[in-house]
Amino acid sequence: MKADRKTRLARHVFAENLRRRRKELGLSQETFAALVGVHRTYVGAVERCEKNITLDNIERFAIALECSIGELLEEHDEG
Amino acid sequence: MKADRKTRLARHVFAENLRRRRKELGLSQETFAALVGVHRTYVGAVERCEKNITLDNIERFAIALECSIGELLEEHDEG
Repeated sequence: MKADRKTRLARHVFAENLRRRRKELGLSQETFAALVGVHRTYVGAVERCEKNITLDNIERFAIALECSIGELLEEHDEG
Repeated sequence: MKADRKTRLARHVFAENLRRRRKELGLSQETFAALVGVHRTYVGAVERCEKNITLDNIERFAIALECSIGELLEEHDEG
């Protein structure tokens, strides 16, 4: 797959996947934040696309969400 | 694929894929940096795993490398 400028911003795709996966695991933002070792407001900010998350944190999030980094950065169909 | 703590650090995987793909395209660090709009030393630092790159920059790198973000974050066999 070739990336092009028409694809949605990676930040948005990541935010959506994070929120979906966190809810699948039945975790609140607060519980998830504690699991990863970040502040609850940071998780909220990432889910609102306000924070430009770093690769080290993407990796920590993926480990806590028990999925691959790739899965968090790919677009998934809704519904 | 489930992420676990035995997999190599995402930073290393990204660095290796960046270097390989940049060379496939025949780009020097300097030319690539100019293409992306970052400083040459920044590209070198990312390739040496010294910088914790952000998602916005991962996306810009993927666009310049004409590949997906996923491809830059997956482990590839060598050789």
